Amino acid sequence: MTMSRSVHPIIAPPMHPFLWGTPDEARPLGDGSRGLLSAMLGIDADSGSRPELDDVRLTDSSLSDADREALEAIVGAAAVSTDRDQRVGRARGKSYLDLLEWRSGDVVAAPDACVAPADEDQVLEVLELCAERGVAVVPFGGGTSVVGGVNPVRGEFSSVISLDLGSFRGVEDLDEVSGEVTLGAGLTGPEAEELLAEKGWSLGHFPQSFPYATIGGYAATRSSGQDSAGYGRFDEMVRALTVVTPTGIVEAGHAAPASAAGPDLREVFLGSEGAFGVITKVRVRVHRKPEVVRHEAFRFPDFASGTAGVREVAQLGAGPTVIRLSDEPETMVNLAGATESIGEMNMNPGCLCITMYEGPAGSDADVEARMARTREILEANGGESAGAAPAEAWEHGRFGAPVLRDALLDAGALCETLETATDWSNVAALHAAVGEAVTEALAPAPAFVLCHISHVYPTGASLYFTVIGAQSDDPRGQWRRTKDAASRAIIDGGGTITHHHAVGADHRPYLAEEIGEVGVAVLRGIKSAIDPAGIMNPGKLVP
Amino acid sequence: MTMSRSVHPIIAPPMHPFLWGTPDEARPLGDGSRGLLSAMLGIDADSGSRPELDDVRLTDSSLSDADREALEAIVGAAAVSTDRDQRVGRARGKSYLDLLEWRSGDVVAAPDACVAPADEDQVLEVLELCAERGVAVVPFGGGTSVVGGVNPVRGEFSSVISLDLGSFRGVEDLDEVSGEVTLGAGLTGPEAEELLAEKGWSLGHFPQSFPYATIGGYAATRSSGQDSAGYGRFDEMVRALTVVTPTGIVEAGHAAPASAAGPDLREVFLGSEGAFGVITKVRVRVHRKPEVVRHEAFRFPDFASGTAGVREVAQLGAGPTVIRLSDEPETMVNLAGATESIGEMNMNPGCLCITMYEGPAGSDADVEARMARTREILEANGGESAGAAPAEAWEHGRFGAPVLRDALLDAGALCETLETATDWSNVAALHAAVGEAVTEALAPAPAFVLCHISHVYPTGASLYFTVIGAQSDDPRGQWRRTKDAASRAIIDGGGTITHHHAVGADHRPYLAEEIGEVGVAVLRGIKSAIDPAGIMNPGKLVP
Repeated sequence: MTMSRSVHPIIAPPMHPFLWGTPDEARPLGDGSRGLLSAMLGIDADSGSRPELDDVRLTDSSLSDADREALEAIVGAAAVSTDRDQRVGRARGKSYLDLLEWRSGDVVAAPDACVAPADEDQVLEVLELCAERGVAVVPFGGGTSVVGGVNPVRGEFSSVISLDLGSFRGVEDLDEVSGEVTLGAGLTGPEAEELLAEKGWSLGHFPQSFPYATIGGYAATRSSGQDSAGYGRFDEMVRALTVVTPTGIVEAGHAAPASAAGPDLREVFLGSEGAFGVITKVRVRVHRKPEVVRHEAFRFPDFASGTAGVREVAQLGAGPTVIRLSDEPETMVNLAGATESIGEMNMNPGCLCITMYEGPAGSDADVEARMARTREILEANGGESAGAAPAEAWEHGRFGAPVLRDALLDAGALCETLETATDWSNVAALHAAVGEAVTEALAPAPAFVLCHISHVYPTGASLYFTVIGAQSDDPRGQWRRTKDAASRAIIDGGGTITHHHAVGADHRPYLAEEIGEVGVAVLRGIKSAIDPAGIMNPGKLVP
Repeated sequence: MTMSRSVHPIIAPPMHPFLWGTPDEARPLGDGSRGLLSAMLGIDADSGSRPELDDVRLTDSSLSDADREALEAIVGAAAVSTDRDQRVGRARGKSYLDLLEWRSGDVVAAPDACVAPADEDQVLEVLELCAERGVAVVPFGGGTSVVGGVNPVRGEFSSVISLDLGSFRGVEDLDEVSGEVTLGAGLTGPEAEELLAEKGWSLGHFPQSFPYATIGGYAATRSSGQDSAGYGRFDEMVRALTVVTPTGIVEAGHAAPASAAGPDLREVFLGSEGAFGVITKVRVRVHRKPEVVRHEAFRFPDFASGTAGVREVAQLGAGPTVIRLSDEPETMVNLAGATESIGEMNMNPGCLCITMYEGPAGSDADVEARMARTREILEANGGESAGAAPAEAWEHGRFGAPVLRDALLDAGALCETLETATDWSNVAALHAAVGEAVTEALAPAPAFVLCHISHVYPTGASLYFTVIGAQSDDPRGQWRRTKDAASRAIIDGGGTITHHHAVGADHRPYLAEEIGEVGVAVLRGIKSAIDPAGIMNPGKLVP
């Protein structure tokens, strides 16, 4: 290492390896939830347990001394670690199966080393070295994957490193005329919003993983935020991105907001999940920080009328920033979770629809007009205003669900989410098919299968399912069978295998059916052209 | 050929090979235009001439008898032609260089045969045969390319066929709930709109090539229509597409309106310009036929204030269906062209901005609100309403300019367009740089370099240049040098080499600079994976 190179000392990820967030974010289940678990699923929330992190066994590092020295020569000794504290924090994402594995008593496979390059040139040198020496590389941002996206799969190689993006935290080239800025891939959602807010701007991307997920992760997985109706999916916000591949650095999309210069290369690297290269910078559209905010909730008699309402809002472009519709079971369980006792439960509360409207300073009239137009459409479809409070309550708790899952797991409950998207004309059928597939796969164990629409498009919408049930004696096998049944129902029912969770290792077995043989050939063609050694995230994405 | 296979007899393209449209669409230059040509460019519009089509010499067909018989065995004898009448109509697109070649007296290279498969299976068999026998394939839709996209480049092969999409003219699977329909790639714009209008729907894609260009061509070239502010670019309308490649048929994007299942394969085939395969069907978003239409024009003191106005309209989402801004020279020349004599010319008319607003039946209030919001923003930036008439006049003549070009060429004038797009913050600089580069390259010959913004995005806009000048003794060399100077100014000035004309053969030398080495590797990787013999449109798109 020459003295002139920058060194980014590696810093452990902030989240606990098998809890969402840090341990002090933990919240116990409320009385309503405990009553529901007990009455409906037969789960005693007081009987659970949680292992100690120190008791979990990890695989030993298989990185050779020579490889370690070569990596240190590129990034500096302080930016390479084989310490347990570093490896344990990058061993798994946050899927239910990931969490079960930590709790299983099995030895957990961890990356053989964690490496934190300081800049694009160092990333390129690391990838070139790994390609030459046959070391697999898993890019690591926030570690929030729920599809096995960061798991240290070695593939055909003898070792695998977790490549940390923590040193890519810059905010560069804010163009206030065009409304664009370049963000480092390692910035978390809150870090990016805070830096932008200082200058009066906002990105407006708020997925549930927002507190920990990173800009690079959003791009690599085609993340979609809760405000997607107003600000678009993350991929729609991307003006350009910088990707370091084993064969060179590419800037995709830098020349113009729209172009006819062949295939859109941004769309090749968006959703590439570290299998083609490492996203280091993302140039995004930003908008003036919202100063005007309005909320309104609606109740629909059923999911069908609510679906028709939110569809028409999307198709007529009425303009809410957030629009969400819970089905009957989700509406019921959410209400029950907020009650003091199971006795207060309303078993037929209809379907709750949440809307929110934002605009920059001075946009009050525009915001009110969008709200009035949305209300008019929802009411015409059978919705009744329930005032601002339910929507404000939703916004207040919008990032809290993953923490509750840890408490459910402590109580011995099964808890996982899965999602898809389809045409409007297929929403009802796919909603029913997935619900039935999950219920049947878990039977005779009782389970809640809850669903909401949270991302709407003119031609279709997403469906997001939450499954809560009683764990069997083989909880991992139980969920693998259930997930497979749900995935089959999605593919056979004409939906996409994932609307915003990405492919990772978990959805990979279903991807070929969605994109076909030629689609698989395209992905393999791209990969072999720019990652000929196949070191980038083997076992993920590309079938 | 078995009797059960369908045969689509090949039909010659409707356009005259070197005129826009059919000869009866021809219009003479008006007195204002003739005066302008004479006074400003020294061109006598009465001195020109046009060659007879029968006098133009074509290359002979080099297709072997064996290859012809093999093709006939797949598609039927009536769907294969080596006749002059068929080959002449598919020999060139409609760029200025194409038109000059017809007028040059040189032998024009024509495809060796024209082949019109009846369905996807026949297309696949034709491509498999051509891959096996080494025959290049150029897909042909409307033949409106202005970048050499349909020219019969043989590449390393001994012959080249023009593959006609004329039999793909279906309208299928209209989903009135989701607002989607599947259109055959060979439908022209008017054919598609007429078939949709019968059912109360519209696509809303109106590029200048609308009367002749096809749905498949729109997708293959990332076409952008004049109503892009309201209905989006064509690529944004595409829900899914069917592509026949030499290695199989792919359906891209069919599963959902949005997905996180890896790279977006639609975006690989959109803009693929026949270099990866043949687009046979496109599933698009449609909207209710507009019944409410409003127009308003504005005058700005200069291009800078007008640019600021249309930028703010785009960034605040005010919602016009069409918004266009001409620079000072274009405003002046358009006004002069409409006058009776050169003496009436207003040499300082400012900049004309055209807006149009559409909505479905019953949307009057919404349309009026969008119009009022747009007016408010444009006026705040220095625009003054000029009433509906200039915008109505623009709409009336919106598809007429290419016909006028033929009259200009008859008169011995140089006339061509070129286009780019860039960030809003770079619009003024790029506008100046391209204008200067073109003017300098043509000097000392006088020329008009006119420009307008016709496609706006939150982060940037397109710039569309029209160049009218006096031809030199070597008009093709003159334009090649001018086009290269403009292209260098675009690339060096940070724009894209093409916003909606596509790459074809003409922009291919500049593409590598825009997408970089890794970008080129990605395109080559895709091509070699699905067109390993390299028969698809050699010499186009992929550097």
